[in-house]
Amino acid sequence: MGGYYGGLLARAGLDVHFLLNSDYDHVRQHGLSIDSVDGSYNLPKVNAYRKPEDMPACDVAIVALKTTHNHLLGNILPCVIKDDGYVLMLQNGLGIEAQAAAIVGEDRVLGGLCFLCSNKTRPGGIHHLDYGQVRLGEFISTGMAAGITPRLKELGSVFKKALIKVDIIEHLAGTRWEKLMWNIPYNGLCVILNITTDKIMAHTQARELVRNIMAEVQQGAKACGFALEDNMIDNMLERTDKMKPYKPSMLLDFEKQKELEVEAIYSAPLEQSKQSGCELPRIQTLYQQLKFLDQKNRGVLP
Amino acid sequence: MGGYYGGLLARAGLDVHFLLNSDYDHVRQHGLSIDSVDGSYNLPKVNAYRKPEDMPACDVAIVALKTTHNHLLGNILPCVIKDDGYVLMLQNGLGIEAQAAAIVGEDRVLGGLCFLCSNKTRPGGIHHLDYGQVRLGEFISTGMAAGITPRLKELGSVFKKALIKVDIIEHLAGTRWEKLMWNIPYNGLCVILNITTDKIMAHTQARELVRNIMAEVQQGAKACGFALEDNMIDNMLERTDKMKPYKPSMLLDFEKQKELEVEAIYSAPLEQSKQSGCELPRIQTLYQQLKFLDQKNRGVLP
Repeated sequence: MGGYYGGLLARAGLDVHFLLNSDYDHVRQHGLSIDSVDGSYNLPKVNAYRKPEDMPACDVAIVALKTTHNHLLGNILPCVIKDDGYVLMLQNGLGIEAQAAAIVGEDRVLGGLCFLCSNKTRPGGIHHLDYGQVRLGEFISTGMAAGITPRLKELGSVFKKALIKVDIIEHLAGTRWEKLMWNIPYNGLCVILNITTDKIMAHTQARELVRNIMAEVQQGAKACGFALEDNMIDNMLERTDKMKPYKPSMLLDFEKQKELEVEAIYSAPLEQSKQSGCELPRIQTLYQQLKFLDQKNRGVLP
Repeated sequence: MGGYYGGLLARAGLDVHFLLNSDYDHVRQHGLSIDSVDGSYNLPKVNAYRKPEDMPACDVAIVALKTTHNHLLGNILPCVIKDDGYVLMLQNGLGIEAQAAAIVGEDRVLGGLCFLCSNKTRPGGIHHLDYGQVRLGEFISTGMAAGITPRLKELGSVFKKALIKVDIIEHLAGTRWEKLMWNIPYNGLCVILNITTDKIMAHTQARELVRNIMAEVQQGAKACGFALEDNMIDNMLERTDKMKPYKPSMLLDFEKQKELEVEAIYSAPLEQSKQSGCELPRIQTLYQQLKFLDQKNRGVLP
């Protein structure tokens, strides 16, 4: 995801610096190669770094880590942001921006939601299959609508110049709940049932379970102050019916025996709902099952 | 289970007739061989049948089929019971006796719950690992306590003579709910997580999920008019802690790619609770997941 958006920004002539881990050696030598439905391209030379200390301070730090690595942010963020710069958190789940705010301050955090279907196929190689738009919003710790600021508008126009489809949103937290309405049922069930989305949609009881879970997400959002409309559930089911057989990112992580993003996608919404007095038994069941399956899958069961 | 109890009754000199399917040829030629913690024995010659039409009418028809084959009862029961005989349903789940009652009449049905740890290891060969007691009670369609009848006492004393440990119970339906408090969490989770009981007990979130599900069973029982005491949950958790790593029957069926008993163990309790106005979201989630996994496992997904 970082390669996809960073690649588009770099191609548009922006001064982009990539902090890399396993891909560092390859990208430093060969750059990035993007095979995209919107037109493929290569960036033979990009600014690649292995350590945050070696990076220049930037206007914007775009965080495209898996949330399971957010414990690294305390070392990274202070190195890579200018004094008047800010962080853009492009991750799934809830509570993400608060983690960055604890490091750089609440007024220096923006959040984004990506609707992107892409995979890393090899070191430095990205396959972009579909979609790609981003919703960008200001973070505010109360969870209320933070409105549209000049820097948010500016960031949006920079992204648009790089040919990224952008929606500027007034209410980041509400939009995060909206995305969870898809992510919570499909990510978890595709792992637990070890299957692609189409098989779930074709099965009477599994499809009913997706709907039941979506209704719980709606309840959780409502308890936290965000109204998600009733027809959103039907719309999401219909949209998923039309998708090709799809493996959500959590199933891809599971297959690679990587740690699953259960805390950001399940635990944080459960906690926020509970604090508002709302229990979500089905989502809690998925969380408990996924914690077990994740540890079993990585060979670290107690 | 039929071989274990039928074997004990035959050894005690009772006139036992076995209706068999895949084991018919072997048992007809070689009889039954029981390897038991309570002492092993062979029955070289037993009355074995392949078709119910060939069987004599009996005083008691003991049903030890998997509930997934209960659609066969309409053909079997009328052939094998004397006019003044009755049926003893030795199966898991709820709604079992009502299925027999619809065929032979409500006043001709008893029910039993088996606490037995045994496996069929080969045709005609039974390995009895632990336990073995049976709780026997009269069936009554209202679900109320049916009391202790003379025939129930008589059946109990026959079982005891055959060295089967028996409890005579006044309230069959309440005892079925009690057994579900173990069966519902462990059978389902051991299949969904594909693991033995000990690993679930050692895992913080999975163990918490077991407790949450047991509390839902208690709620369902209460809605249907049966009070299960609070300390029952702690007792069951402690008892399971002390068990050796165990594969519940549903996991054994899953491993053999047999159809799972989800209707009797999950759907019937959900339906009865719902009719009493009680939703059980975690148990419903297990049911929906198990329906999918069962069909996936047998290669019959839609």
